Amino acid sequence: MSKVTCDVSTSVDGFVAGPNQSRQDPLGVGGERLHHWMFPAQGQDQAVIEAWTADAGAYVMGRNMFAPGRGPWDPDWRGWWGDDPPYHVPVFVLTHHPRPPLEMAGGTTFNFVTDGAAAALEQARRAAGEKSVLIAGGANTINQYLAAGVVDELHLHISPVLLGAGARLFEGVRGLDLQPDQVIASPDVTHVRYQVRRADQQD
Amino acid sequence: MSKVTCDVSTSVDGFVAGPNQSRQDPLGVGGERLHHWMFPAQGQDQAVIEAWTADAGAYVMGRNMFAPGRGPWDPDWRGWWGDDPPYHVPVFVLTHHPRPPLEMAGGTTFNFVTDGAAAALEQARRAAGEKSVLIAGGANTINQYLAAGVVDELHLHISPVLLGAGARLFEGVRGLDLQPDQVIASPDVTHVRYQVRRADQQD
Repeated sequence: MSKVTCDVSTSVDGFVAGPNQSRQDPLGVGGERLHHWMFPAQGQDQAVIEAWTADAGAYVMGRNMFAPGRGPWDPDWRGWWGDDPPYHVPVFVLTHHPRPPLEMAGGTTFNFVTDGAAAALEQARRAAGEKSVLIAGGANTINQYLAAGVVDELHLHISPVLLGAGARLFEGVRGLDLQPDQVIASPDVTHVRYQVRRADQQD
Repeated sequence: MSKVTCDVSTSVDGFVAGPNQSRQDPLGVGGERLHHWMFPAQGQDQAVIEAWTADAGAYVMGRNMFAPGRGPWDPDWRGWWGDDPPYHVPVFVLTHHPRPPLEMAGGTTFNFVTDGAAAALEQARRAAGEKSVLIAGGANTINQYLAAGVVDELHLHISPVLLGAGARLFEGVRGLDLQPDQVIASPDVTHVRYQVRRADQQD
């Protein structure tokens, strides 16, 4: 069965987005600082995220990661990423509002799943085949899958930033055993890869 | 002037102690798991903490780190660490209740400071001379000094543990620039050393 991976940038104080997320501030106030490490010409950091996500055969994300606002869809909204989003595989978006699949350039198709997180993961596993399913965010979505005990691997990219408020990673998450198996450091970010299993699982 | 360093073990979800701290559970329920990495025969982890704290000429700690409970002192209480505490230099304990200095074996003297955190730091700086002052804990004490912008270096020992509740590091702390300058990883813990300065300070 497909491995399930969460890959997320977090502040040192544990936030994966700043407060007051909006169309203008999709990562909340100050939240874009979490991703500074992705943009400079830091070959090492780029290589880490490429290596750690190379196996992704499908993504799952919350509606808030795909679009601002709530309620019925604005059919003109096609995500934050332009015509060729950086996924290149099927993406399953959790929502309460049905919408036909949205085929983008480069192999990305956004599929809108209205029957819950477990169903979205099941569809993503089928789409991924032998490859892994990557839970992309936001915080609520990641926390939901972590709390459900279905995540096999957690990638934390710890940015040297204090946000002070926002969307907190690990809210409501307990009962997991974590085992760090790779740590890669740069001046911009500390990458830690954890193998995850439910604390009640036996070897 | 003495460098000021905070050195603290934290859970992956940002707690430096579990909930319900007591005489039986000085680190709160589950909190002793934060320090597992200190006890096994992990030469590398021992070496990190020894190297990163070798320069300590004085320590500051909150009353809760020195003793359980509140109110007037039990004069028989001489700390959690037996006759020869692991400090071997002057330790300044923040408290509202005066108490004469307590001289222990091995060079540790506990001094009880009733006129506030700034005064305790000042006394610790004088005692440390050219060496550094190490802020030992707990969370409230560390957060207070971080928020005051007087900390020069922060050592996080990130244990692969989820506590879910307890004393949260960075509560109320904002306005700091962090720069990781050393990261050392083992299967038991991820050590990250940050250089810290106030965001409003110029180079």
